[in-house]
Amino acid sequence: MGVVIINFKAYREGSGKRALELAKIADDVAGRCDDYIAIAVTSLDLAEIVKEVSIDVFAQHVDAVDFGSHTGRINAEMIKEKGAKGSLVNHSERRLRLADIEHIVSKLRELSLTSVVCTNNVATTAAASALKPDYVAVEPPELIGTGIPVSKAEPEVVENSVKAAKNVNPEVKVLCGAGITCHEDYVAALDLGAEGVLLASGIVKAKDRKAALEELVGLR
Amino acid sequence: MGVVIINFKAYREGSGKRALELAKIADDVAGRCDDYIAIAVTSLDLAEIVKEVSIDVFAQHVDAVDFGSHTGRINAEMIKEKGAKGSLVNHSERRLRLADIEHIVSKLRELSLTSVVCTNNVATTAAASALKPDYVAVEPPELIGTGIPVSKAEPEVVENSVKAAKNVNPEVKVLCGAGITCHEDYVAALDLGAEGVLLASGIVKAKDRKAALEELVGLR
Amino acid sequence: MGVVIINFKAYREGSGKRALELAKIADDVAGRCDDYIAIAVTSLDLAEIVKEVSIDVFAQHVDAVDFGSHTGRINAEMIKEKGAKGSLVNHSERRLRLADIEHIVSKLRELSLTSVVCTNNVATTAAASALKPDYVAVEPPELIGTGIPVSKAEPEVVENSVKAAKNVNPEVKVLCGAGITCHEDYVAALDLGAEGVLLASGIVKAKDRKAALEELVGLR
Amino acid sequence: MGVVIINFKAYREGSGKRALELAKIADDVAGRCDDYIAIAVTSLDLAEIVKEVSIDVFAQHVDAVDFGSHTGRINAEMIKEKGAKGSLVNHSERRLRLADIEHIVSKLRELSLTSVVCTNNVATTAAASALKPDYVAVEPPELIGTGIPVSKAEPEVVENSVKAAKNVNPEVKVLCGAGITCHEDYVAALDLGAEGVLLASGIVKAKDRKAALEELVGLR
Repeated sequence: MGVVIINFKAYREGSGKRALELAKIADDVAGRCDDYIAIAVTSLDLAEIVKEVSIDVFAQHVDAVDFGSHTGRINAEMIKEKGAKGSLVNHSERRLRLADIEHIVSKLRELSLTSVVCTNNVATTAAASALKPDYVAVEPPELIGTGIPVSKAEPEVVENSVKAAKNVNPEVKVLCGAGITCHEDYVAALDLGAEGVLLASGIVKAKDRKAALEELVGLR
Repeated sequence: MGVVIINFKAYREGSGKRALELAKIADDVAGRCDDYIAIAVTSLDLAEIVKEVSIDVFAQHVDAVDFGSHTGRINAEMIKEKGAKGSLVNHSERRLRLADIEHIVSKLRELSLTSVVCTNNVATTAAASALKPDYVAVEPPELIGTGIPVSKAEPEVVENSVKAAKNVNPEVKVLCGAGITCHEDYVAALDLGAEGVLLASGIVKAKDRKAALEELVGLR
Repeated sequence: MGVVIINFKAYREGSGKRALELAKIADDVAGRCDDYIAIAVTSLDLAEIVKEVSIDVFAQHVDAVDFGSHTGRINAEMIKEKGAKGSLVNHSERRLRLADIEHIVSKLRELSLTSVVCTNNVATTAAASALKPDYVAVEPPELIGTGIPVSKAEPEVVENSVKAAKNVNPEVKVLCGAGITCHEDYVAALDLGAEGVLLASGIVKAKDRKAALEELVGLR
Repeated sequence: MGVVIINFKAYREGSGKRALELAKIADDVAGRCDDYIAIAVTSLDLAEIVKEVSIDVFAQHVDAVDFGSHTGRINAEMIKEKGAKGSLVNHSERRLRLADIEHIVSKLRELSLTSVVCTNNVATTAAASALKPDYVAVEPPELIGTGIPVSKAEPEVVENSVKAAKNVNPEVKVLCGAGITCHEDYVAALDLGAEGVLLASGIVKAKDRKAALEELVGLR
């Protein structure tokens, strides 16, 4: 069906050993459904998780720098060497300058890595789409982490984001995020024209993470 | 003919008493030519300069905040009360996050203030245009302050920026900046499809600022 | 008695015409009490307010830049030319990098302007004191804007900040902020060893601002 | 003798496979000399390198966040789980806000991890020392990457930093960085009262990295 990207954030449950556990759960569920499931993990966990699973692994962020004197920074080349599929860019918790988003998206494209640019409303979705990323993921900040799905609370944001994005760049794919936790929300997102969802706490912090992910993709 | 916006930056020659002097020079020259001349001044100088000249006065920056607990910040409402015409947004020396650019452009529009969003290349010009500002001003960072005019050194950047901007938003007006100092550069910019220029050191730091501005607009 | 610095922030009631009104109230009250009353206003309002009152006027922030290509920035030299007494530095709503705090404090000292470095706990108060500012103002962030006075809720923070500051730099003066609204809180702060208070909403957003300030300094 | 921390930065030669190679070189040299040799690597490389070497491995940066909704961030707990010894903090290429430096240093201390706070001059060294980190590493920014050793070009910066640091906090250890490439520079640093050096390009980008490190610690 659609695209599901699980953002592990800096959750305790999404880092270290528990990140690896969840990555394996996602890998297992991905093998039993028709959806494309990928994960976005911390830079500390990325290299190891890539080795342990067959699903695509994304970085949560890369810096807008080339190789050089940039202590504490990582770049697109580095995540490629580690086997990442691509990176989230400009997540609402890691907002970037426009020029840096463009730098990163261009660099990811050059390296044949996948870019997922997060945006917060229709206008920024249109703007991000003009940079020709692979995906834009619209997440109204006021809904992130609430469990109130954007696909229900603000369906027009999803619909209008899809329209605005395609209008600027017909090839960009649109995800929607913020508040997505269950199959119904996911299906609603697809019905609104999104190609899938970007989600986090609904899966990462679920008591039974395997059950939560199975439910999301309709295996329960 | 075209649009000339003079950015006073934080130059010694562009602040305090010397800012007021230059504002009056610009005001005088504006009255003697067919060009639209406006100035962008520091927040400290804005209120006084607005009172002393009849040309439009822009802020160089406003913060993406509403009224509230934001020590050290100024917003669009405040510059409107002082009589500003609008604001530069996202200058290369004051790069902003995409979500903040959108916030500021929307707020300026609501308040009937003019937005001039600065960009660094064709892709970011397209992205900024999607936010529906009044102007985008493309300035390749490598040329800023060099005296090498973008309209000559990289004419394709100007042409392609105009195309990309209009393609995304037919109503946006395109300025070009970086390295513009003389009438010839200005005319070249207009010939490439720009509606005008954003410039700084070529006028602000000129030995004879009145002569420099007169030359720019073809009065000499 | 002590020092009272009123931070106008970016409050609607603290900018534009209402800022000037409040500045005049503070000026009037200052003439009728033994306390040192100063105000910290937005960069847009600073120049005009300095001309209209005789009390000391501070900037809320200056950038760590010299004169030059720094669009949208203001520096210490500029506020001096406008007649400011000094500047707040590193307010909790405008946190700065350590190297920039040092740059700004040194520059203010060179220009014989007064620096008030805001800090959030005992350790950062000690650190800031090592930079030899005129004042450190400790404000536990969790109390800012609450009306719960630090001098009562966390008296040990004030006492220990005074000790830590004097230990590192015997000449530094310590203010305390966060939640201060009335005379009793102010006196409590002085009793704990502070030289005064930095406050904002309690005065700026009070229904009767003159009455609130008179009450603060014990005139009511 | 002293302490040698090698900062791999985001150099091409300091990341991925070449980082692992260099880590093993450092591990080997450490076993053959009396100096304490440690390395600071990118977050992407950290977990793997920790497993492959017995010398201490530092992160180059951790964010001032706890576990939670902080996409693209890593914290002190995470690097501890990966086996890091500690972290550089506030490197000149990753300058932090004072409150964040304090947050990170305190968190590292709680977790029994080692903190190395970088500073740029005598005043910021004193300030950082007040936060009670394990080390402060003073690096005049104008010398970083130049090959001009601070221990020779500005010996008084090193001496005065040691004095200022010990004055504020007798237990803090002082490193010096910037321009250190050879044994002579290293010895000069120790003679000036530093406990060791923080260095980068002189080793990481050397043609023969093993030879360069051996020379540094006097094995050649």
